[in-house]
Amino acid sequence: MALDRDETAERVLAIAEELIAEGGSANLKARTIADRAGIAVGSIYNLFGDLDQVHGRVNMRLLDSLGDAGMRAVMRMQTENITDTRLRLLELSRTYLEFVQANAQAWAALLAFNPRLIQKEAQEAYEKRLDTLLEIIGSVLALDQSLKLDDATRKLSARVLWSSVHGIVINRSTRRQKIRETEDVWLQIDHLVTTFLKGMDHR
Amino acid sequence: MALDRDETAERVLAIAEELIAEGGSANLKARTIADRAGIAVGSIYNLFGDLDQVHGRVNMRLLDSLGDAGMRAVMRMQTENITDTRLRLLELSRTYLEFVQANAQAWAALLAFNPRLIQKEAQEAYEKRLDTLLEIIGSVLALDQSLKLDDATRKLSARVLWSSVHGIVINRSTRRQKIRETEDVWLQIDHLVTTFLKGMDHR
Repeated sequence: MALDRDETAERVLAIAEELIAEGGSANLKARTIADRAGIAVGSIYNLFGDLDQVHGRVNMRLLDSLGDAGMRAVMRMQTENITDTRLRLLELSRTYLEFVQANAQAWAALLAFNPRLIQKEAQEAYEKRLDTLLEIIGSVLALDQSLKLDDATRKLSARVLWSSVHGIVINRSTRRQKIRETEDVWLQIDHLVTTFLKGMDHR
Repeated sequence: MALDRDETAERVLAIAEELIAEGGSANLKARTIADRAGIAVGSIYNLFGDLDQVHGRVNMRLLDSLGDAGMRAVMRMQTENITDTRLRLLELSRTYLEFVQANAQAWAALLAFNPRLIQKEAQEAYEKRLDTLLEIIGSVLALDQSLKLDDATRKLSARVLWSSVHGIVINRSTRRQKIRETEDVWLQIDHLVTTFLKGMDHR
């Protein structure tokens, strides 16, 4: 029985995910996808247009999966009654760090990916996922009434925290020593979150 | 008259710099270097071992050049009697941002480069350059006696600021909109530096 269009697209994306997880975007080849899916190369182009669209879709799933991990962390903290803003931000940072470590190749490929390559209709959906991630951080800041952040400052602070933690996490790879790498990243994240939060408290 | 070994090495590096600046590390090809330098491909391998060593050397020059820009900024601020720590850190951030914008391809290639590929003897020299960059930030923090930072906290803070500004600068490329991009990056850098510094002031 032939697969329908949706099933084939789903299969292509699942294989593309595997390929990127194995060897980054250089490993994403139409020929390999077609062979593994048991379809013609042309079917991939019929379904998605080009490989950039396939990679864009894989990235969206990856962002969804990071968003889900973030949401789960927020819910876990609610259940465990963790209300301290610093601890909440550290927990979100830890979630991000673990996610990047678990999806190293795919995440590096996402960062190297140019979202401007995505078809215009899908770009909004792509950016919406990035916004969702920022909103998770923003919601933690919003819960802390003592910070008295207006809407614009809260959004700006969420973006700064996101980019800063991101910078700390990726910078580790520019160092030769792998020893105590994660502890080292943690020391920096903790110092960033603690000091930044203290600074917001004293605006 | 044949070039001597040092002159040939210098010529290879100058061409490699051009190639990376034009098209990143994918553009760094032994064949192209050899053609442009008027030497045999084998000479490149004789001189450097492999292309990773060539790229490593180009990166070191790039780090030197960023270090020089940072040093010049520090001296300029001394001449202009800029003593406010926040303004000093913002000026260093601006220097970094302008450097990354002026050397976009080469800097992206440096970030994607794995320093572990460099021959062991040269790795120390590579890391020393990264340390020099951190020391420039650290020296600005050290000049501010009111912060009362011990040595370890000052070093940690310099690394966090470096990584955070870096994260903000590179994250801009994940966004579709190019409009007001630099202003947007500035808003984030200013918020980071100002808030982080306030937090250090209130430890």
